[in-house]
Amino acid sequence: MSGPVQTSPATTMISFARGAPSTDIVDVEGLKQAAVTAFDTDPAGMTGYGTAVGYVPLRRWIAEKHGVPVEHVLVTNGSMQADAFLFDELATPGAAVITERPTYDRTLLGLRNRGADVHLVTLEEDGIAVEEVAALLEGGLRPTLAHVIPNFQNPAGYTLSLAKRERLLELAREHGFVLFEDDPYVDIRFSGEPLPRMLELDGGAASEHVVYASSFSKTVCPGIRVGYLVGPPALIKKIQVRATNTYIAPNMVAQGTVYAYLQGERFPAALERVKQALAERVGLLDQALRAHLPQATFRRPEGGYFLWVSLPEGEGHDVARITTEAAARGVAIVPGTDFLLEGGENSFRLAYSAVQPGDVDEGVRRLAEAIEAARAQA
Amino acid sequence: MSGPVQTSPATTMISFARGAPSTDIVDVEGLKQAAVTAFDTDPAGMTGYGTAVGYVPLRRWIAEKHGVPVEHVLVTNGSMQADAFLFDELATPGAAVITERPTYDRTLLGLRNRGADVHLVTLEEDGIAVEEVAALLEGGLRPTLAHVIPNFQNPAGYTLSLAKRERLLELAREHGFVLFEDDPYVDIRFSGEPLPRMLELDGGAASEHVVYASSFSKTVCPGIRVGYLVGPPALIKKIQVRATNTYIAPNMVAQGTVYAYLQGERFPAALERVKQALAERVGLLDQALRAHLPQATFRRPEGGYFLWVSLPEGEGHDVARITTEAAARGVAIVPGTDFLLEGGENSFRLAYSAVQPGDVDEGVRRLAEAIEAARAQA
Repeated sequence: MSGPVQTSPATTMISFARGAPSTDIVDVEGLKQAAVTAFDTDPAGMTGYGTAVGYVPLRRWIAEKHGVPVEHVLVTNGSMQADAFLFDELATPGAAVITERPTYDRTLLGLRNRGADVHLVTLEEDGIAVEEVAALLEGGLRPTLAHVIPNFQNPAGYTLSLAKRERLLELAREHGFVLFEDDPYVDIRFSGEPLPRMLELDGGAASEHVVYASSFSKTVCPGIRVGYLVGPPALIKKIQVRATNTYIAPNMVAQGTVYAYLQGERFPAALERVKQALAERVGLLDQALRAHLPQATFRRPEGGYFLWVSLPEGEGHDVARITTEAAARGVAIVPGTDFLLEGGENSFRLAYSAVQPGDVDEGVRRLAEAIEAARAQA
Repeated sequence: MSGPVQTSPATTMISFARGAPSTDIVDVEGLKQAAVTAFDTDPAGMTGYGTAVGYVPLRRWIAEKHGVPVEHVLVTNGSMQADAFLFDELATPGAAVITERPTYDRTLLGLRNRGADVHLVTLEEDGIAVEEVAALLEGGLRPTLAHVIPNFQNPAGYTLSLAKRERLLELAREHGFVLFEDDPYVDIRFSGEPLPRMLELDGGAASEHVVYASSFSKTVCPGIRVGYLVGPPALIKKIQVRATNTYIAPNMVAQGTVYAYLQGERFPAALERVKQALAERVGLLDQALRAHLPQATFRRPEGGYFLWVSLPEGEGHDVARITTEAAARGVAIVPGTDFLLEGGENSFRLAYSAVQPGDVDEGVRRLAEAIEAARAQA
């Protein structure tokens, strides 16, 4: 610890830390109705064990959404569990894996815990630096897996361009690795135009190189813990065996409720409300950053939960100290260092998903104060 | 395949195979009401991420039930997921582990898949042969874990006696291994007197040698996928880290619904109904076995889902062939060989939990025919 820190216990905490929606933008009433509908219409399916493929009607819905036969789909207890199964299969000890730099901290941890040989590749504003990937491959690297968050990346908020999606696929085909398209945020785009999934670009049902993951955490709610994988049937079958051996079957009550919710009338309007709320929050955050932190650089995202802020290099910023000073002033952030194996001391992630609009400006004002206080100690 | 098999496609399948309740003994209406109550009373807790410890009020309820502080409890997506986390921690490659012979097939598979050195110890009608365990320990075996299903064991239906519970604990203390008390069936006892848990015998909150697992699959329903571990806080904390890294948090919607259900008025009567139905089914099964398979030996269980049947040795019974012949006659069983690393050719498991009372006698009649037909081929 470096010197005394001002504490203001009376201040209400404003959190830019957690990538989760505030409860006011979750359609609790709709979910409750969906649960009732699901128990009424399919009592045996909701209460029985089911199998590791997931709740059968939801699996079919997902297969139709992505234009693939059901054998390509496995529905899991949240998409992180899906990631974990895929990593168990492909990110074995010593296996080379490519990820973005920065990337989701739990992805890095999951890969490192399995003893994978992780290669981080620069993330640019239009996505992973594909020529850096190509150079690694030309240099002899033979990855089993490349992990990419194509839309509104966590932590940066950036989106992978169409040209780069195509180039990545080309590399995956040429060098025979699995491209893991980890896409939980895709359906909460609030501006700009959607881009095709790499799964589709690779032929959808004919795709041999893409494993696609997504989730209902962002469109329905996180506590329901429903995610899924779409990929080549042989690989999905192997992961299904892992899932059976781990938990027999995922949660049928939750998956049946999600299915009933998706079939119901409230879902489209509820999703629209989430997107509007996120658009409003990111607009306010953009404004507040320009007002209180004019020295910061960032790219305003077109969807998702996150915005990545960098302070000028060479000014001796120490994000650990900034985080501490911010906490003392009642504002929570996640330091950039959490999303990298090295570096990130002048960066941090701001999640706007859970911040009330009226708190955004005050939160950034406090953060600017914290940055000044941290710098004064340097 | 051995010779032609009679098929009767018009016959309705009677299944003694799956350890699951029939839907008619699940309180679907009560669960539906509980889901509504849970969404109404705790919308933020139900829909938010939560943490890997599980839904906080349910964790507290479980801690109170077992008389331990909450730090001893981890609520998971079903108890098999809890087993998997514990095995990841203690059944590492080469680690010696003791199990019962026969035991739950998925337990054996989970241990073998992890490369553990599995030692199966005879299961007697009053539970695992404790002096055989003692002999292994005296012979120098140093297990990290001994897995025991104390009540209405799967597949045998047997219950561990009090004297053996005490002796096992003594051995665990003396040799410093974890006694894994895997107890999903305890609350569906329909006759006889309950015995104290080894967790309690080891001092409950002060226990250092017991990790206890149970589930709501048998008392509420399987599709809700809620199980839990109770154990020493340091070990529970390690498993909590694994759970966080695997799925962030288990299902809050399911766990919140279970909690509301346990608090509601319908639970005690619903549990009573399950027990009465199981008692009726086991009574009919006992009767049918005596009538149609007088040569078979079995012990009528005092609770749970399963009954283990052995045919006389030395008569050349082949349970694989019996299973095929039974299937051809519209009756499903699980062969004894599934629950052992070797042997079991003259045994099979009958699950009575999912069989309608009116089908029990006919199912056993068909099974007796199948046994005759299989023997005729030998």
